[in-house]
Amino acid sequence: MKLYSYFRSSASYRVRIALNLKNLPYEYVPVHLVREGGEQLKSAYRKINPDAIVPAFIDDENHTIQQSLAIIEYLEETHPEPRLLPKSPADRAYVRSIALQIACEIHPLDNLRVLRYLKHTLGVDDAAKDAWYRHWIEAGFATLEERLANDPRTGTLCYGDTPTLADLCLVPQIYNAHRFKIDTARYPTIQRIHDHAVQLDAFVRAAPGVQPDAE
Amino acid sequence: MKLYSYFRSSASYRVRIALNLKNLPYEYVPVHLVREGGEQLKSAYRKINPDAIVPAFIDDENHTIQQSLAIIEYLEETHPEPRLLPKSPADRAYVRSIALQIACEIHPLDNLRVLRYLKHTLGVDDAAKDAWYRHWIEAGFATLEERLANDPRTGTLCYGDTPTLADLCLVPQIYNAHRFKIDTARYPTIQRIHDHAVQLDAFVRAAPGVQPDAE
Repeated sequence: MKLYSYFRSSASYRVRIALNLKNLPYEYVPVHLVREGGEQLKSAYRKINPDAIVPAFIDDENHTIQQSLAIIEYLEETHPEPRLLPKSPADRAYVRSIALQIACEIHPLDNLRVLRYLKHTLGVDDAAKDAWYRHWIEAGFATLEERLANDPRTGTLCYGDTPTLADLCLVPQIYNAHRFKIDTARYPTIQRIHDHAVQLDAFVRAAPGVQPDAE
Repeated sequence: MKLYSYFRSSASYRVRIALNLKNLPYEYVPVHLVREGGEQLKSAYRKINPDAIVPAFIDDENHTIQQSLAIIEYLEETHPEPRLLPKSPADRAYVRSIALQIACEIHPLDNLRVLRYLKHTLGVDDAAKDAWYRHWIEAGFATLEERLANDPRTGTLCYGDTPTLADLCLVPQIYNAHRFKIDTARYPTIQRIHDHAVQLDAFVRAAPGVQPDAE
């Protein structure tokens, strides 16, 4: 198995945690998103992912899969243990809705190509660009905090005490928040879940700072 | 079952198609996103979806689910026929990756709240805002066209000849593209799939123009 990843990419980080939780060894293929205009934009990588974003995943049967959540659902279906989604459909929907809130409402707005469009095409200055970045994280975390603080399914992690797809999306999003100096202590449930999760071995080994391409 | 929907919301449109394909009757609860500052922002609706976006779904056992893709996966698990995802894990991943490309890379950037931020907070003028809207659709459609045109799994629809999650995301995104006068004929495979899909009964009945709150 191969994972095309960039150490700082939070979507890649989600998949790294999933692979670690399921004890699946994989080859780490670094794709540098910034150096020389971005390796993801070159034709060699575009053959693997025409969207020119990371991650991309190739399994042992040579199936190429794009999109972090599609990769994780695939891993869940092909390597079901340990489970990253609960058993009951209603609880699976709950966990997916948290993951998708992060993946659809927060993360896409703060992607590198979006920040570049703001700066280079719309001429937004750095202060306004950083405010944009923080705005979408803060708006999303405020409602996520409300949900997690009030739902009886919340445990030491987003859903009970074992990692699910929701935690795989939350922890990398908090990594992004910290890069932009957002004080996540304002979201006590999110903060508590984060502090617990990042101590788990699968999360420790997936962290950006310990990847082969970390700077 | 209840669907909280706005006729023009493309995320709501996805779920309407799914409910129709699975022959599930539902109560349509309109949430007007524009009138009086937006019904989605009022506390009555925020109790159902704290994120203040549509759709939200409540099933017959009173489970409330947010996020269109989580709702559709839930319907797929609780009402498996007709299937909206293929049988093999690799093909399921392929279909999900198309759906997620639209749901994560295109749609979030053109959401109402994002357009409002561009206009009111960043002071972007209408022409630049419209160019932004078109940019993300065109960038996404260009790579999606490449993928669909070259993949042997493409049929009269995104995956073979029966509707899948990919078509449920593609058709509403094309509706958005047409609202902003994007010429989708430049994407011949996407155009062909769209023209076929919109004639199917489940898609006809889910179209924005025939919803109870259509204007």
